Amino acid sequence: MAFKLTVLGSNSALPTTNGFPSAHVLNIHEHFFLIDCGEATQIQLRRNKINFNKIERIFITHLHGDHFFGLFGLISTFSLLGRIRNLHIYADSALKDILYTVIDEKTINFQIIFHPLNFKKSDILFENNSIIIKSFPLKHRINTCGFYFSEKLKDKNIRKEFIQKYNISIKDILKIKKGEDYKTEEGEFIKNEILTIPPAPTRSYAYCSDTAYTEEFIDTIKNVDLLYHEATFEENDLELAIKTGHSTGKQAGLIAEKSKAKKLLIGHFSTRYPKTDTILQQAQEIFENTIAVKANDFFEVISD
Amino acid sequence: MAFKLTVLGSNSALPTTNGFPSAHVLNIHEHFFLIDCGEATQIQLRRNKINFNKIERIFITHLHGDHFFGLFGLISTFSLLGRIRNLHIYADSALKDILYTVIDEKTINFQIIFHPLNFKKSDILFENNSIIIKSFPLKHRINTCGFYFSEKLKDKNIRKEFIQKYNISIKDILKIKKGEDYKTEEGEFIKNEILTIPPAPTRSYAYCSDTAYTEEFIDTIKNVDLLYHEATFEENDLELAIKTGHSTGKQAGLIAEKSKAKKLLIGHFSTRYPKTDTILQQAQEIFENTIAVKANDFFEVISD
Repeated sequence: MAFKLTVLGSNSALPTTNGFPSAHVLNIHEHFFLIDCGEATQIQLRRNKINFNKIERIFITHLHGDHFFGLFGLISTFSLLGRIRNLHIYADSALKDILYTVIDEKTINFQIIFHPLNFKKSDILFENNSIIIKSFPLKHRINTCGFYFSEKLKDKNIRKEFIQKYNISIKDILKIKKGEDYKTEEGEFIKNEILTIPPAPTRSYAYCSDTAYTEEFIDTIKNVDLLYHEATFEENDLELAIKTGHSTGKQAGLIAEKSKAKKLLIGHFSTRYPKTDTILQQAQEIFENTIAVKANDFFEVISD
Repeated sequence: MAFKLTVLGSNSALPTTNGFPSAHVLNIHEHFFLIDCGEATQIQLRRNKINFNKIERIFITHLHGDHFFGLFGLISTFSLLGRIRNLHIYADSALKDILYTVIDEKTINFQIIFHPLNFKKSDILFENNSIIIKSFPLKHRINTCGFYFSEKLKDKNIRKEFIQKYNISIKDILKIKKGEDYKTEEGEFIKNEILTIPPAPTRSYAYCSDTAYTEEFIDTIKNVDLLYHEATFEENDLELAIKTGHSTGKQAGLIAEKSKAKKLLIGHFSTRYPKTDTILQQAQEIFENTIAVKANDFFEVISD
């Protein structure tokens, strides 16, 4: 089952020769989620051969241009391509008016369902049998949310040999899969751990951009497999990071460490630095398994 | 003196792997004019190493997204880069409200001067000592203008030997440069053609996209050096061209021929065609000196 991240862009606001502004695509079990939609997202989707119609839900962290200016073109293109399936957009409530000022609503031949984000507390945005998606407030100059995507824990797997041995009923099987112990016909109690194999661990991804350093969301993303955290500045420019509501590489490393993430991705580097080596090194000093991402990078979280 | 065109993008609305939507930059004597501003124009400006601050005036043909969705990012970036010089935008009057809905006017630290286009008749948009820029109505589904950029004819050059020979006064020199004949102190009339060398011919560029076939602007662009005319469809799809307000390659060729253009550039090809060979061939059958343009192409009109 897929758990794949494609980085379409991870630039900060100013354009560079090779980069694109923020946009990540997460594929969980062939459900495609677009996280931020910077300018040229549609061009990057095409280059990364991602089927436009597969994009189910779009999550916009905040209404700074480098995180949403690609929406206008993308939605126009959805229409031109004859999309009919619904599109869900999770964003600041102000986005709807902006979108329908730029694009005539009458020209859109599919339904857009807007879900206003809660910037006060963490919220469940979407949930089905196997996936849960949450938002959590970040600390930026304007209302901003991060997003957490996770598989749900599956039921335990019952060891088949015990079903026969004790002639366990379907009703009891379901109970055991949920974690209950079992009492045999002879009255013997058998511990659940003996009867079952644990399910595959859940895989998860968290996206934190743009934000100043804050530990408030750490509980929400605890033990995350893949954490993207912005790292706009070098540690020397910590004051500037605080002033502009951004983070340093070191701070991104601290968040990864404190949230017990398995891997840290950093990006959104300020164009003031010709190279990002220093930011990466400063993050790695705190959290070794850190990667500086760039457009068209691809990451897969493999089931253990 | 520069007369250089950089094609940042010439795609039609749907994204492709290598292309970008419409945006051309014309450099006349180091005055930089941006014609249309499709999504990712700022990225393409950076890639083509065009200094953002040099963009003086922006001309938007019409308010279909693939011709203006790059404006939001570009103007935000101008602000981030600390631009202070005025920016002139020539566009449908509706653009101003759209722009200020997407971008908070208070965050823009330079003046934007909007010039509403006249969609009824050709208009002079800008004029200085050496350059003239005109708009002319095109025939599309919504209000659309094409643009014509030309050097102005300079004064004639007086042959220096005659100044000494006849001891011509400065006042008379100026008259001769404007084309007057000269009467010597002895009363002899000397024809202007003998006294002068003609000025360098003016160079010109016309941009016609998007449009159905129409000859109405041919007088405005007569003898143009470089003509960009959209060629969305193959001749087989002429009906579709008419229905959607676009042109075929052959029609672009006809306009080039009738306007006595020196060179024809075609673009805005529909993504329905895997290759553009047929459109190009059909244009060349009418007008041989035709080129199918793509992003990052560069053309220079050399003074004779």
